[in-house]
Amino acid sequence: MAQSLEQRVDMLETRLALQDLTSDYCLGFDKRDMGRFLAIWWSDAVWEIGPPFGDFVGHEGVVHAVEDILWPAWRESTHYTTNLRLTSVSTDALEGICDVYCIGNSIDGQAQTVAATYTDRFERRDGVWKIARRKVTMQHFSPLTGITLAAPQ
Amino acid sequence: MAQSLEQRVDMLETRLALQDLTSDYCLGFDKRDMGRFLAIWWSDAVWEIGPPFGDFVGHEGVVHAVEDILWPAWRESTHYTTNLRLTSVSTDALEGICDVYCIGNSIDGQAQTVAATYTDRFERRDGVWKIARRKVTMQHFSPLTGITLAAPQ
Amino acid sequence: MAQSLEQRVDMLETRLALQDLTSDYCLGFDKRDMGRFLAIWWSDAVWEIGPPFGDFVGHEGVVHAVEDILWPAWRESTHYTTNLRLTSVSTDALEGICDVYCIGNSIDGQAQTVAATYTDRFERRDGVWKIARRKVTMQHFSPLTGITLAAPQ
Repeated sequence: MAQSLEQRVDMLETRLALQDLTSDYCLGFDKRDMGRFLAIWWSDAVWEIGPPFGDFVGHEGVVHAVEDILWPAWRESTHYTTNLRLTSVSTDALEGICDVYCIGNSIDGQAQTVAATYTDRFERRDGVWKIARRKVTMQHFSPLTGITLAAPQ
Repeated sequence: MAQSLEQRVDMLETRLALQDLTSDYCLGFDKRDMGRFLAIWWSDAVWEIGPPFGDFVGHEGVVHAVEDILWPAWRESTHYTTNLRLTSVSTDALEGICDVYCIGNSIDGQAQTVAATYTDRFERRDGVWKIARRKVTMQHFSPLTGITLAAPQ
Repeated sequence: MAQSLEQRVDMLETRLALQDLTSDYCLGFDKRDMGRFLAIWWSDAVWEIGPPFGDFVGHEGVVHAVEDILWPAWRESTHYTTNLRLTSVSTDALEGICDVYCIGNSIDGQAQTVAATYTDRFERRDGVWKIARRKVTMQHFSPLTGITLAAPQ
């Protein structure tokens, strides 16, 4: 069962590549960089955001969710992903779970906080890892009542 | 002093294995998955949570702390671990420090926030890395007064 | 274009080394460990904190910012860095972006929260990676009005 050094290095690279995908989700969304955000999804990916937003399929669905629903809902946001844990499915498929914290202002200027868990399926096609499915489970999505979040002037 | 490629790959794998232990602590606790949570601890591990909870020893102590004290105290929680830094002690022992943020509701429905630092000793036995000791130092553990955390319906 | 196994392992080590720099920034600052904090910066590094703090140059500037301005402003703080994404510039230079969340008390005992993004330039000199430039962009730096953060007694 011993793996070759090449196989072990491949697995290490895979792990960091998947970490990059989870980072680009946050950075692409928060910096409103659609190129970075879209590049993490396979063209047939499924993004199950769930209530109150719904589920979205393919690049068209992802762009629609972001540009028509989520970016208009947030004035600004910062997402933080940690705790990524991977389970091997096959050489070219891994399942992952990770947690996200988000803080920012909704479009009406109300401070908001979110804690959620992403359950992911990552697939490698032609040597490239991307997200095939991401399911969002929210622990909370709630206003930070009485708090005003603003950058220093 | 130059390390072989094999030794360097082993160290990279070790680092990611220890990262996984810190992730499984969060995921196991928050998802109430005792199998995942318990698997990170050596059977003689010491978990120094400190005030107001106390210290716990061995798998029996860990199960007691979680099932009898901590899970009953939290209605739901999300822990986020970052900043893991390792210091080599020997080939099969490393010391680590990392930070955790936690947000959730205590059992009475009060929103809570925690910031803490974990000081860890990781040991490799028969080729497997687990936690031999984790000491918790809390920067704060405080109610988010006036804030209600809830998932979207 | 295929890389040797040695080059691939070097890249993996580089990535973890840069992750360590971003962790030591948080741990060094929050634990008030100037040795750890200063060791992440090249002696000619530029730290662009921006308003309301300003920009700082070299180890002298870094020490001045921390000891004379930032530590006196915080009673305690915890920084959490995630989402580190790297872009190759050359064999010995990488650009990075990552997000930080911070929570703590300012010196007057007011709870504070910060969300910011670090844009970094990392350079390898004589085989060692350190930060050559870090620019801070704040999404918010705001009081958690009505909330008291304290450790359990």
